Amino acid sequence: MKAIDVCLSPDLMHLYPVQDRTVVVVDILRATSCITTAFAHGVNRITPIANLEECHAMKDKGYLIAGERDGKKVVGFDFGNSPFEYMQPQIHGAHIAFTTTNGTQAIAKANGAGEIIIGSFLNLSSVTDYLKASANNILILCAGWKGKINLEDTLFAGAVVDALSDVAQPECDAPRVAQHLYNTAKSNLFDFLKDSSHVQRLSRLNIHEDIRFCLTPDKYSMVPKLSDGVLGV
Amino acid sequence: MKAIDVCLSPDLMHLYPVQDRTVVVVDILRATSCITTAFAHGVNRITPIANLEECHAMKDKGYLIAGERDGKKVVGFDFGNSPFEYMQPQIHGAHIAFTTTNGTQAIAKANGAGEIIIGSFLNLSSVTDYLKASANNILILCAGWKGKINLEDTLFAGAVVDALSDVAQPECDAPRVAQHLYNTAKSNLFDFLKDSSHVQRLSRLNIHEDIRFCLTPDKYSMVPKLSDGVLGV
Repeated sequence: MKAIDVCLSPDLMHLYPVQDRTVVVVDILRATSCITTAFAHGVNRITPIANLEECHAMKDKGYLIAGERDGKKVVGFDFGNSPFEYMQPQIHGAHIAFTTTNGTQAIAKANGAGEIIIGSFLNLSSVTDYLKASANNILILCAGWKGKINLEDTLFAGAVVDALSDVAQPECDAPRVAQHLYNTAKSNLFDFLKDSSHVQRLSRLNIHEDIRFCLTPDKYSMVPKLSDGVLGV
Repeated sequence: MKAIDVCLSPDLMHLYPVQDRTVVVVDILRATSCITTAFAHGVNRITPIANLEECHAMKDKGYLIAGERDGKKVVGFDFGNSPFEYMQPQIHGAHIAFTTTNGTQAIAKANGAGEIIIGSFLNLSSVTDYLKASANNILILCAGWKGKINLEDTLFAGAVVDALSDVAQPECDAPRVAQHLYNTAKSNLFDFLKDSSHVQRLSRLNIHEDIRFCLTPDKYSMVPKLSDGVLGV
């Protein structure tokens, strides 16, 4: 049986050796949901960039530039961080440079992993099928919020641990915490998340529609994967 | 309403400013359960020491020396890390120097807090009564296991958040995760913990009796408090 572990915050990544692991990076609200949506709508590739200025500079190299800081679209960027923006026709065939408060930082922290893939509820079954078919041990890396853990990424981690319970053994207590939380919440994820810090923060930005969308399981079938610093499918 | 937050791992303490907070340090299996038991049996004071060699050196200064590394009593130490050892008559009036794998490291990480107290299920209501009576905001610091989170400390944090729900507002998602977990587990904490990594590790050391004892709520009434680096009541 392979091993599965969950890193609930990028600030704990020093505890997890990943050179021989598949790392699933998750930032449900909303980076990895946007990435999944973009690939479902024909984006060619996405280059995740942790640094805002570096991302901005990619505009001159012919990239569309996208992302957010503190939940808000950046001035001068082509797209923000709502998945609905990544359904537009100009996405098709595009190369996007993408930076977000937490998601792209988490991808950077996974550097050196055997393999890095992108997970969201939108492609949940594709991710779990992919992990089942691979011999690799697994680490789910939750992006959280500025180092702190959050409910929505923990819930997604729990959903993956739960789906793999016949084939992957929790290595530590974090996967168990996540799985228990998911089983408590799964009948109505949106209601469960209502009082979370992120939903409260995002509510001020008026995006309940985004949140409902980001909690929809299996809307898309594909697994974005990082290769030489660039995401593709 | 005051604020309550939970730091699930000492390795996340850089995210939590604590200079004006009461920090509750918790290491259920077994450092803070031992500390509580020792004070209930008349120990005079306990000096927590993160470093093993420094703790050893306290023997020559007239202290009883106590603690563990990786769950095992240290050669030459007077007491290990089972709460039952701290019920012996020679505890009464003693000064103990105490070091453990995670608990005393967590106390060290709380350095600089407005106030540092010791929590365990054994003194749960004393701790929550103390926190209710204070105007301070609260941080519960879980000792975890070598930086990783664990179930038992998270459950205790959830029990405190739950007991204070009328007077203290969660600041972030970690208190919510802990509270949900506690509400799932509270009808039978021992059964819930059976598959946790720590219980599995300790089972090899044959100490189910310790674990049952450490999960007993409100056996003792007192709140150990750190003052000038020394715990007293």
